[in-house]
Amino acid sequence: MPAERPREHAPPVAAARRRRLRADRARQLADLLRHQVLTGGFPGGVLPLEDALGQDYGASRNTVRQALDLLRAERLVERQPGVGTVVVAEKYPHGLDRLMGLAETLHEHGRVTNEVRTVGPVPAPACVADRLCVPARTDVLYVERLRRLGGLPLSLDLTYLPMDIGADLIGADLENTDVFRLIEKITGQALGTAEITLEAVNADAHSAAVLQAPRGAAVLMLERLTHLCDGRPVDLEFIRFRGDRITMSGQLRRAA
Amino acid sequence: MPAERPREHAPPVAAARRRRLRADRARQLADLLRHQVLTGGFPGGVLPLEDALGQDYGASRNTVRQALDLLRAERLVERQPGVGTVVVAEKYPHGLDRLMGLAETLHEHGRVTNEVRTVGPVPAPACVADRLCVPARTDVLYVERLRRLGGLPLSLDLTYLPMDIGADLIGADLENTDVFRLIEKITGQALGTAEITLEAVNADAHSAAVLQAPRGAAVLMLERLTHLCDGRPVDLEFIRFRGDRITMSGQLRRAA
Repeated sequence: MPAERPREHAPPVAAARRRRLRADRARQLADLLRHQVLTGGFPGGVLPLEDALGQDYGASRNTVRQALDLLRAERLVERQPGVGTVVVAEKYPHGLDRLMGLAETLHEHGRVTNEVRTVGPVPAPACVADRLCVPARTDVLYVERLRRLGGLPLSLDLTYLPMDIGADLIGADLENTDVFRLIEKITGQALGTAEITLEAVNADAHSAAVLQAPRGAAVLMLERLTHLCDGRPVDLEFIRFRGDRITMSGQLRRAA
Repeated sequence: MPAERPREHAPPVAAARRRRLRADRARQLADLLRHQVLTGGFPGGVLPLEDALGQDYGASRNTVRQALDLLRAERLVERQPGVGTVVVAEKYPHGLDRLMGLAETLHEHGRVTNEVRTVGPVPAPACVADRLCVPARTDVLYVERLRRLGGLPLSLDLTYLPMDIGADLIGADLENTDVFRLIEKITGQALGTAEITLEAVNADAHSAAVLQAPRGAAVLMLERLTHLCDGRPVDLEFIRFRGDRITMSGQLRRAA
């Protein structure tokens, strides 16, 4: 593997017979290396030499090189003269199993700070009012934050909250505290559930600039409507995570 | 909203006072429109006229135009002469709440067909053997499929399975059947759980070509290790979904 020459079983599938492109084999190898890069699988953060990788994965030297090129293009590894290929990824795991704020889920990885780009009441458009169960055109609090981990931009968050909670949020320490924690403090109630939608999108020029990412950089976009324990929707968010800085991990079950 | 002029509450946050860039307001509006585009919120798939959008969202005409530009760049809407701005997104919801195969989760949206690009046994590299709990260098089945919905590429899936299950898979109808379903049929056992990791990455040139997406297109990358009910890991997958064709939705809970 990367299946340079897959052996045939009967009945053979026609497609299996044709010679695979090196690009296909390189992608296959890159995916396996990628997992190890992201999970600390290489001791000291240094990848084995190309020859050793070729041996371990039954891949030609050209395939190994092309696979490493793919990881470099993703800014997961770098070639360092005299050292070899080293891990430079700064990608952090965001839990998908429990509803958590960013500072909460990443507390082992560093301090999350928030630059509040704007905060203030705005009349709720119908689509926001509907989801937060307030009358249309009622004021809701709009908060826009650039969130950093270890000083580097991680996400750009656009948040809408009902004004009874929002009014208390304006004077709170938004720079250093998750909105989730503040909502629970203000309401004296724990959060319950959230409906989330995840997408991969290319960053537009302005979002990329704010996130200090290249134009067109892949962004993990999260839309989330969070409810209090009693079911009331209190927090509608549109979050753009820099794709090169976050992974989302969780467990799924087959049974309903 | 988009907060052209957020009103101030005491104590004012300094950042709230500064004049917001139109690009910020356009992103804010685009996110709200985007949700409605993806959830069928516009009757007949036609967006209101720019003036009406401006009124509904308290946004200037220039902000509305720029927001629509963002949605067009994402290929979610198009401007049609004499009609206006229409929804052209073909983005389908993949459930994040239950472990499901692609054909299963998308059955309401059309037929999933699989082009088997390669299938055959390969010696398992250590990192695959470890995760599938087979001895290193043992043969495992490698399957590479380009999956289509309604004829258009949706995802490129790289799959590893232990050979006792894999041997029966080779002769199966991989073109028209989810691997999940085949595993359950072959083993006579239901699947149990899967650990998943989701990321947003830019497609490399070759993956983009295979997926018929532009070079650098945002891809939703899913790594998934699936277990049988009895806990045995049987299916390791690396899946690249075209970002413009899939959303992942689910519900998170606050309580552990």
